[in-house]
Formats: sequence, C-alpha cells, structure tokens
Amino acid sequence: MGEFELIRRYFRPLSGNAGSEAIILGIGDDCAIQRIPDGHDLVFSVDTMVEGVHFPLNYNPENLAWRSLAAAVSDLAAMGASPVCFTLALTLPQSDDTWVESFARGLSQASRAFGLSLVGGDTTRGALTLSIQVHGTVPRGGALTRGGANVGDLVCVSGTLGDAGQALDYLELECPEGDVASVLARYHRPAPRLSLGMALAGCASAAIDVSDGLVADLGHILDASEVGAVVDASCLPISPALRRLAGTNAASKALYSGDDYELCVTIPREKWVDAGSRVREALTVVGHIDASRGLRILGPDGEEALARDAGFDHFRSNR
Amino acid sequence: MGEFELIRRYFRPLSGNAGSEAIILGIGDDCAIQRIPDGHDLVFSVDTMVEGVHFPLNYNPENLAWRSLAAAVSDLAAMGASPVCFTLALTLPQSDDTWVESFARGLSQASRAFGLSLVGGDTTRGALTLSIQVHGTVPRGGALTRGGANVGDLVCVSGTLGDAGQALDYLELECPEGDVASVLARYHRPAPRLSLGMALAGCASAAIDVSDGLVADLGHILDASEVGAVVDASCLPISPALRRLAGTNAASKALYSGDDYELCVTIPREKWVDAGSRVREALTVVGHIDASRGLRILGPDGEEALARDAGFDHFRSNR
Repeated sequence: MGEFELIRRYFRPLSGNAGSEAIILGIGDDCAIQRIPDGHDLVFSVDTMVEGVHFPLNYNPENLAWRSLAAAVSDLAAMGASPVCFTLALTLPQSDDTWVESFARGLSQASRAFGLSLVGGDTTRGALTLSIQVHGTVPRGGALTRGGANVGDLVCVSGTLGDAGQALDYLELECPEGDVASVLARYHRPAPRLSLGMALAGCASAAIDVSDGLVADLGHILDASEVGAVVDASCLPISPALRRLAGTNAASKALYSGDDYELCVTIPREKWVDAGSRVREALTVVGHIDASRGLRILGPDGEEALARDAGFDHFRSNR
Repeated sequence: MGEFELIRRYFRPLSGNAGSEAIILGIGDDCAIQRIPDGHDLVFSVDTMVEGVHFPLNYNPENLAWRSLAAAVSDLAAMGASPVCFTLALTLPQSDDTWVESFARGLSQASRAFGLSLVGGDTTRGALTLSIQVHGTVPRGGALTRGGANVGDLVCVSGTLGDAGQALDYLELECPEGDVASVLARYHRPAPRLSLGMALAGCASAAIDVSDGLVADLGHILDASEVGAVVDASCLPISPALRRLAGTNAASKALYSGDDYELCVTIPREKWVDAGSRVREALTVVGHIDASRGLRILGPDGEEALARDAGFDHFRSNR
C-alpha cells in the first residue's frame, strides 16, 4: 500500500472522534466547516515540530504524533477551552510505510485521548516537519489569558514539574525501568490538562501551560499582567522519581526545564477558598503575585536565592 | 536587528488588517480567539509550501509570501467565504534579515489585498517550509462545495487559464517584458477570486479553485457530485498573451496546467439567466454537466478528442 493511501486509511477514522458533531464539512473539500455554538468563541493555536530541533532524529513516530498533538492541545487547556478538532500539515522526507503506520497509530491514540477530530490538512514532501493547529471553544468572555494576574493572587502549578526535562538524559536507553521509565513516559506521552483547564475557567485569573519551563512561562504571565511574583522553591511539586534521579538538582529541573505540559495559573485567594476540592487537589501553591516586577525565587533556607533577570547561575549550572 | 525581531516588527502590523474586528485576542497568548457572527459558520483550510517542491530554490521571498497566502485564500474563494484571518507556521533555514524583510513585505501586501489579519503562528528553524491556515465565514448552510453539481448545469471558469503554467518556462528570466511579463505576473502574484466566490454563493451548485489544472480540478467536482461533463476546448478562456506565446499549445496549457487560482463552478441554467451581469461577465461557459461519468473534451473540430481516464496524450505531450 502506498504511503498516501496509508495516510488516508489511518487518518480518515480520526475524523469521526469526539468534536466531530461540530464539523459540518470535514476532509475532502477546499475547506472544512466548523459550527461554533451560540454564545461561544473559537479558540485556536498552531505548533510546529521540526526533526532535529523539537524532537531527536529517528524519534519514535508513535510518540512523535502523541507529543505533537499534546503540545498543541496543551495551549487549549491553558485557555480553559473545550477541544473540538485539528488540522495537520505533515511534511515527510521519503516514502516509509512503517513510519506512517506508526505515526498514524500514535495520532489516533492521542486524538481519542484528548477528544479531538481531524478535519483537514496537507501532506507534502520535504524535511520532516509537522504543524498542528487545534481548535476549541469557550463561552464568550470565558477564556483564561496570560494577562489577568493581580497582586495577592496565589501562583499554582498542576501535577509535578521537571520530569520531562530529566528524561532528556535517558532518551537513548533501550529498556528503561522504574524511575527512568516513569520520567520518560512524561516526555514521550505528556497529558495536557484539558479538564483542569476547563474547571479553572471562572476561578483562575491567568493561565499558561508549562512548555518552556516554570520560570520562563510564569515570566510570560508576569509580563502580560504587569506584576511580579515570589516562588518558594521548597514548595515545588516534585515527583518521587525525579527526587531520586536528580537529587539536589530536582528543584532546578522543576524551575527551568520544559516539556511537562502542566498548567501554571494564578488564583485570587478568595477563589481558592471557594474552589472545589478537585481543583485544589490538582494544584500546588508555589508562591504569590506581588507588585514588584520580576520573579523572585526563595531558596531552601528561605532567603531570596534567585531573582529573574539577575542570574539563575546557581540552579542553571545544574541543567 | 535580529531576524525574530524583524518578524515581530513586520508581522505585527498585519494583525490590524480587515478581519481583525472579529479577533478577540490575537498574537501573544497561548491561543487566539475569533468571534463568529451569529448565524454563520467558520470555514478554514491549510496549505503547505516546501522549497524545491512547491516553489523554486532561491525564489523571490516577496512573491513567495504573496503566492502562499493567495493559494490558501483561494480555497476560501472556492467556498464563497468571506476572509477573516490567518496563521503562519514558518520554518527558516538560517538567519537572513534581507530575506525576512522581503518576505514580510510580500505578506503585508497580500494580506491587505485579500483583507485578512494575521492572528498567530509559529516560527522555527529548519528547511524552508510554510504552512498557512486561513479562516473565513459563511452564512450557515451557504458554503459552496464540490458535491452539488447536477446534470444540465453549465460548467464555467473565471478569468483566463494556462498563463501561470506558461510562466514556468520563463522563471529564470532577468528582465521579462510584454507577454512574458504578463504571464509571469499571473504566476508570481495570483489574485484569488474572493468577491466572485461570495457573489456565486446562492447561484453556483458546486465550486473549486483551479490550482492543479482545469481537468484535474473539474474532475474533483465530478467525483464528489457523481456526474460527468463535456468541455469544449474551443470555448476555453485564453489570454492574448498565452495565445501568442503558446500558439497551438495554448488549449493544452488551459486544460492541464495549474497555479492560475481561478474558479471553476457549475451553475444551473435557470440561475445563469438570473445571475447578475457582474457574475456573468466574470465567467466563461466552457461546457455542461451530464450523467455519463467522467470528463469528455471536444477538440477544435468538434469531435470528442479526449476522454478523462482514457488518455490526454495529444494535449499532454505539449506540456
């Protein structure tokens, strides 16, 4: 079977997933047509992944498909949006049926897991590159943005941080086990926080997904909201696996390494008190917003060990 | 100035174009937010252009930007959609300020000419590749598709065909003049038929844009509509420039060469009579739909010279 026939065979079924009831016209015409429910807005984001830049050469295609869709969907989670559909622009270097079959399998798994349908795209010949654009919806005015943080708000993160960054040391391992397998799973199969994002709409004042590292991504919230923050490094949520693997470098990984696709949100204190237990249990409070611009990080002994834009040398040297 | 700073400087202004009043949130957050007017649907399409595949090596970046956006926007025209906005996933091989400045200039010109605003994207390092996703809107149920052609409908095309294909012979010329300059302009600066597409909604039964050549693209309408067609080669709209340059090969160019981005539509005869003079003047009737599947082409002497799937050898040998 030819490669493009394989793509049709494996990709077509993804057009019938959750979200497809909003699709008036899908794959096979000049355009796709999506119906937006009354009182809702369209929310969308595009992410490109280039071989050798965003993922290693000869990276497992099943994981590549999952990671690429997860990275794009994570932007929907950060807006509190409900996922609907996606397009895929896939550029492939040469015909390789095994690769396409494996990639399509991963895309199918991810698309079912995240609840999106495939509605269109373009397949071309060239250096291995993927652009995925995801579409979601939010009730009008209900999207979470980066710009709403206020002085006094709590800074919270979901899950644990640093695992995916630690995994970079083990990507070449053939048969990982135990803690190593656990952090590798975080790198290969990230789980975007879609339901948490939706639950946070109406509760969080600002949100972003942690793709470039907590310090970098929280920095975007601070810039957009024109505020500062203090983060207590001893409060960072760190998995037992990362603690065992990274030892004293675990906090550095949690602060600076990316690819975890957790959410970083700010929540007014009164909303935190009223938030449901599901939201509170999914989040760890790591600091608070203040009026002094920039990000200050309290070290293990409680003193201000690091200041944003003033040198992360202590932690960064351990990357 | 750095390349990415240049991108920001030149691309940001494109976010304020026509269409931007529908954008609740543009460049700079995790996602963009688009408001769809009540009673309308979102229409969207993605197109990828790869260097050395879809455009020549070292192709003029200003023309590249225009052509890439035009190719994507042409899909909106074929749906009868009103353009709103677009995203750009741009992968660049190395830092080249002159290239970026020229590309951004072309994108700005095209985006103003077609009436779309830039609302997001991703810029990455790698082999030169662009994916553009365009968004438009149509009144609910009002989109033109490929699947609505009926027996007896007229087959019509806009403008003239074959010029862009003829231009391929002259891409290396330094200072083109006259007829050559005229067909080269069709290749470098195609003008998608947006206003005609909108005027055809409610009049045409099926539509497609001519990107791969009339025979191939009309074939998609016939397949989707499960009908056949007869096209009279002597009726094809051919520019004086193409006639002079291609001589007896002009009809072959008009049938088989792509990149013109004209519209091919089918129109019920009673609608044709009632269509406004603006629509009728923009179109040339080249044939009609019949019940016998496949495409038959009548040659200059009126006999059935060519049948789809049965050999285009006569005309094709002249490509």
